[in-house]
Amino acid sequence: MSALLGEYWRTDDLSRRGYGEDNSKRYALPVGVALPETREQVASLVRVCRRHGVPIVARGAGTSSTGAAIPYSGGVVLSFERMNRILHIQPGDRYAVVEPGVLNGDLQRALAPHGLFWAPDPASADVSTIGGNLACNAGGPHAVKYGTARDNVLALTAVSGTGEVIHSGGLTTKNATGYDLTRLLVGSEGTLALIVEATLKLLPLPPQRASLRALYQDVGSAAAAVMRVMTQPIAPAMLEFMDRACIRLAREVGGADIPDAGALLMIEVDGDEATLPHALEAVTVAARGAGLLTLDVAPDEASREILWAARKSLSPALRTIAAGKINEDVVVPVSRIPELVAGVEAMATEFNLPIVAFGHAGNGNLHVNILFDPADDGQCQRAEAALPRLFALTLSLDGTLSGEHGIGVTKREFMRDAFGTPTLDVMRAIKAAFDPDGILNPGKVLPAR
Amino acid sequence: MSALLGEYWRTDDLSRRGYGEDNSKRYALPVGVALPETREQVASLVRVCRRHGVPIVARGAGTSSTGAAIPYSGGVVLSFERMNRILHIQPGDRYAVVEPGVLNGDLQRALAPHGLFWAPDPASADVSTIGGNLACNAGGPHAVKYGTARDNVLALTAVSGTGEVIHSGGLTTKNATGYDLTRLLVGSEGTLALIVEATLKLLPLPPQRASLRALYQDVGSAAAAVMRVMTQPIAPAMLEFMDRACIRLAREVGGADIPDAGALLMIEVDGDEATLPHALEAVTVAARGAGLLTLDVAPDEASREILWAARKSLSPALRTIAAGKINEDVVVPVSRIPELVAGVEAMATEFNLPIVAFGHAGNGNLHVNILFDPADDGQCQRAEAALPRLFALTLSLDGTLSGEHGIGVTKREFMRDAFGTPTLDVMRAIKAAFDPDGILNPGKVLPAR
Repeated sequence: MSALLGEYWRTDDLSRRGYGEDNSKRYALPVGVALPETREQVASLVRVCRRHGVPIVARGAGTSSTGAAIPYSGGVVLSFERMNRILHIQPGDRYAVVEPGVLNGDLQRALAPHGLFWAPDPASADVSTIGGNLACNAGGPHAVKYGTARDNVLALTAVSGTGEVIHSGGLTTKNATGYDLTRLLVGSEGTLALIVEATLKLLPLPPQRASLRALYQDVGSAAAAVMRVMTQPIAPAMLEFMDRACIRLAREVGGADIPDAGALLMIEVDGDEATLPHALEAVTVAARGAGLLTLDVAPDEASREILWAARKSLSPALRTIAAGKINEDVVVPVSRIPELVAGVEAMATEFNLPIVAFGHAGNGNLHVNILFDPADDGQCQRAEAALPRLFALTLSLDGTLSGEHGIGVTKREFMRDAFGTPTLDVMRAIKAAFDPDGILNPGKVLPAR
Repeated sequence: MSALLGEYWRTDDLSRRGYGEDNSKRYALPVGVALPETREQVASLVRVCRRHGVPIVARGAGTSSTGAAIPYSGGVVLSFERMNRILHIQPGDRYAVVEPGVLNGDLQRALAPHGLFWAPDPASADVSTIGGNLACNAGGPHAVKYGTARDNVLALTAVSGTGEVIHSGGLTTKNATGYDLTRLLVGSEGTLALIVEATLKLLPLPPQRASLRALYQDVGSAAAAVMRVMTQPIAPAMLEFMDRACIRLAREVGGADIPDAGALLMIEVDGDEATLPHALEAVTVAARGAGLLTLDVAPDEASREILWAARKSLSPALRTIAAGKINEDVVVPVSRIPELVAGVEAMATEFNLPIVAFGHAGNGNLHVNILFDPADDGQCQRAEAALPRLFALTLSLDGTLSGEHGIGVTKREFMRDAFGTPTLDVMRAIKAAFDPDGILNPGKVLPAR
């Protein structure tokens, strides 16, 4: 490894520890940390590791909340932090070619002067990498209009588990040429191949935005409003939800100026000076209906900040009331949101823990947060016990385990409940097609046979 | 087979001939034709065929232009025509569950009363099936705003080459749960698994549309306009192109009232009464620029028909001047359209055949039509000789072989030029993961090793 990477092969304790953890608060020690600068180095490294049967865990910035980047099998952590160049921006053809270590926020800043953006906007955007966003199929609030990582990538260059460099996709938004390896690699969490270059689909940056905040007496009324908004022709740019517990926390802990209510929706539209008032009117009409308590409109940036204050105060409020948090990202059809939230409320009572739900209602993608005190063993155990119940509830509502965080290790065993054996066996066979010796991020995504 | 399917297992000559051809004008004779009605029958049939090493070619309505549905290896043609039920429409959650034999047009008519539509709109929509649209990743003019089949499917149930029933995806628009088998199956042309049920993503039907027609002095001016349109925030609902030869044919053969020009763009926007004028204004501004000759606006349906007359007269005009037509669907980045069209013009001269280009300019997806007289051996040979040159030209412009028709047999050998050996080997390994004995549509998409 030293022959290949020189000083960028690290085996000191500090490096091994620093690269052995991610945002899941989990931890394992790798044998060493590789910091390659070129795809050729990545390919050589994979071939060497394959020869010796050494696992490789690819790593962006380590913001995964599912333990996807933890080297549980030891081996090599391969960090893409030095492969961080924006190689090419082609505004007229609306694509950018980047290395995987580019930070999402840095890319957005490079694109803005061209009037373009890349759609995925995870909360971690300023500190997470494009490679990590692709590996986990990251989303964010704008996904309701613009899609997730999987919807916004055109082509990938990647190194398979045999050390071969493969190329998928192309530079164009239409492509019916062979199997879609591109979208297969997106969301595969470094288990199939290591992405060394990505060609991203860019979108025109809307010049203006406007918001509204609607409070409803119950979740059912809010979900009905979400369905009305999503079935009229003006797509909202964001459609965020908070349940009663979140509203209370935002007011009582976060200090937000917001009355009590059963549910809150924050709806944002974007456009230009001419179209924005019409878009705002269309979603306002759709947001009105049975169970609406109050509706406030923010036609400009200043009033927008006031309306979003409740949503923004939520995360600090959650941290204030509990040091421990299991933050899931389950998804259900919009019509099942009331049952999901009712189930979560019942779980909060049963497990005697604060459990709150908020997030991307337009996609039915709710962040269910189980809050607990990590110093209290009983609370820790109850939080851990609540998790399988949440996934069982989600699957019983025709939902799915993850909308934008991925599976990693934390949700791996629940894959058996989400898919039957034949489907998991096909996924395992695909894994073997890319990585016959199973050296790429072993033990992630797929449960053991 | 008769035990399994009764009268719906056909071995008479008429059936074998009728199901042995598709819209590619190619032909081969299957051993028999299976017309199953349930997924269980499909799974049983696959298991029987696997046991005896018999190939199975899945078939929708046989509209493929690439020979994807031709049973070159004999075996069984499995037609999904009896699995043609719309199982469920869930308007609030914007999805529909259908069997693969449902006709695209029938689905659209069932969705319209709900104010919804399914985006793929191939020219064959009234006679092609959802299963075929998915198998070939069909598109159409609206793909520029709403995407292709691959972008508009949420979940699939499919029978693999081992006869196992697998389930991919879910009911929601966000999904980061395991490998994306859904989009892998879309566009795989029946070579990986047989789709027996599809859950489709639905979109709100825009109530109104408006069009403009712009003529340019040359293709470069038109391509620059396409880039201006595609990088402003109002997405066009269609952005169609015709080259000089097409414009001339539309006028001189089709009788359209249109002056001579180097290139034509037809741009359509959709929306409601309030937003439509602004959308039309935005794309009109973007369409104006150097090289513009004339620009005509059609704010309503009646004037729309007049403007679209040139585009609509094109296909009949093509049939009038030549009985034979090779209709390709190559894709290049928008900025390379001028080079593609110039190359096509040079080929027309060199091969002494009419070769025209028109189609979906917003995606860079042009239908290059090589016209010839099938009764003239010389013309047939020249048309066949022109085809590899077209693909070489497309690939040299960083383009791809197919945007919406797929690969089938006609483009299979060119896959070697589109992808290197390592990438093709991964595709072959994926094929083996789904279909270890290679009984599903053998000889399609992937060239022999």
